[in-house]
Amino acid sequence: MRDFSQDHQWMSINTATVRKSRGQEVPLLDILDACARLGVRAISPWRDQVAAAGLEQVSRVVRSHGLALSGYCRGGMFTASDDAGLLRARDDNRRAVDEACELNAACLVLVVGGLPGGLQGKAEYHDIGRARAQVTEGIAQLLEYARERKMPIAIEPLHPMYAADRACINTLEQALDVCDLVDPARSGDIGVAVDLYHVWWDPKLQAQIARAGQKRLLAFHVCDWLTPTTDLLNDRGMMGDGVIEIPKVREWVEVQGFAGFSEVEIFSYRWWELDTDTILRTCIERHRSVV
Amino acid sequence: MRDFSQDHQWMSINTATVRKSRGQEVPLLDILDACARLGVRAISPWRDQVAAAGLEQVSRVVRSHGLALSGYCRGGMFTASDDAGLLRARDDNRRAVDEACELNAACLVLVVGGLPGGLQGKAEYHDIGRARAQVTEGIAQLLEYARERKMPIAIEPLHPMYAADRACINTLEQALDVCDLVDPARSGDIGVAVDLYHVWWDPKLQAQIARAGQKRLLAFHVCDWLTPTTDLLNDRGMMGDGVIEIPKVREWVEVQGFAGFSEVEIFSYRWWELDTDTILRTCIERHRSVV
Repeated sequence: MRDFSQDHQWMSINTATVRKSRGQEVPLLDILDACARLGVRAISPWRDQVAAAGLEQVSRVVRSHGLALSGYCRGGMFTASDDAGLLRARDDNRRAVDEACELNAACLVLVVGGLPGGLQGKAEYHDIGRARAQVTEGIAQLLEYARERKMPIAIEPLHPMYAADRACINTLEQALDVCDLVDPARSGDIGVAVDLYHVWWDPKLQAQIARAGQKRLLAFHVCDWLTPTTDLLNDRGMMGDGVIEIPKVREWVEVQGFAGFSEVEIFSYRWWELDTDTILRTCIERHRSVV
Repeated sequence: MRDFSQDHQWMSINTATVRKSRGQEVPLLDILDACARLGVRAISPWRDQVAAAGLEQVSRVVRSHGLALSGYCRGGMFTASDDAGLLRARDDNRRAVDEACELNAACLVLVVGGLPGGLQGKAEYHDIGRARAQVTEGIAQLLEYARERKMPIAIEPLHPMYAADRACINTLEQALDVCDLVDPARSGDIGVAVDLYHVWWDPKLQAQIARAGQKRLLAFHVCDWLTPTTDLLNDRGMMGDGVIEIPKVREWVEVQGFAGFSEVEIFSYRWWELDTDTILRTCIERHRSVV
């Protein structure tokens, strides 16, 4: 297993982690500057942040700072209650691939969507099997498009508590079943993003990481699970503050040959109350000591 | 599938559902009276409520009202960071079996425990594999004791969001793996409690219900999953208010031969603000219309 204790060359910052500073939104370009200043080599930005700053401008600054993208957040949200909605999702995902290519991202991360309307509290249908079928179909279509552009796509299984509103792919096993179906050759053009927050509890985690194998382990996200967790979305813990055995799982992915970045993705009302540099310095310190 | 629309003879009330009325704790004996008055045939009481009212007294009132127990809540919490803790758990679980026998419960439901201390926000160790091994060992021991007393024990897989603090058995598949291990003959002395709140999201739900089969489907709990869910513990929905396809899953268990009660178990700050009769009448109405 790689030694992370001496530096943070293999740490990436998901920009949601520093989306706010002292409770205020931070423009993406300021986040990129802060990362560069602290020697962060890689980031994973969100589409809304990129759109707000302007894709071309972000692309320029990313290159000038020499930042790598461990991933691009995010495509997905494939489900809809009518054909028009499915078409909109298809087109939007193609744009996401194009943006990921422009930014030279390692992969496009997919949060696949739950029941359509679920996120707005008004699920338009309740058949999660139907949602899953739409997701599989949407991914199959997107894979063709992404493959031509040489942009790997990574299914991120989300914690089951998000099944209704954010993603109906909820285990690594289920994500890999979809990968097997749409890419039986296991080409590596489609794989998974292993985010410990979502999968740490899974009794089949180690076995499914082995099943994924090097080619399909496209991203590795870390944070921690707090006890108690007080909010379903924005109470993720800083690495070391919760119960996840991060090094154990990192070893499992590295045994398979994963050699990419460890991406810090923390949605947290608590951390967003601190300032950008404090959050980043803490991420670096914890990356070296507990990841 | 049984027709529930004409009456509520197959509805059971988990007493946590009416633990409070207008925000105030309700003594168990008052709950039993209210259930009897509204023609509820079955309940599933909690040990702390029984202890507060006195086991003998509860047993007498249950019999005088002719109430059945669809289950007894709960045994489990098998994990500990030392041998003394494991022994305390073993002894406490034996007492739970004895109480379940006294009350003539259909089964003793097991919430197996998470990381020891997790519920108090101070996990004493972080190795969830160790917790799972302790749980399997604890269940194996308890099965011997319960079998002699002819009290079936039902593993209730809890939603993965409770893995750290309440139960490290989080899917039906995992629960059945434990059943297979400790009872390879599939005697029915140990089985599962299928609570839709915990398992509705599982892509393998139908397959694992079929795997369980009639003998191991010992309890069926209903409520609903709300979007958004605002609290990890006490924001369960009344049947029909959320996204779970209850009749579809009820059909899956009944196809296997399950013919027991549909137990309403709702932990909800919102519903606990209403009065006992309103909660119970709503349960009855929804049982007939959407379960």
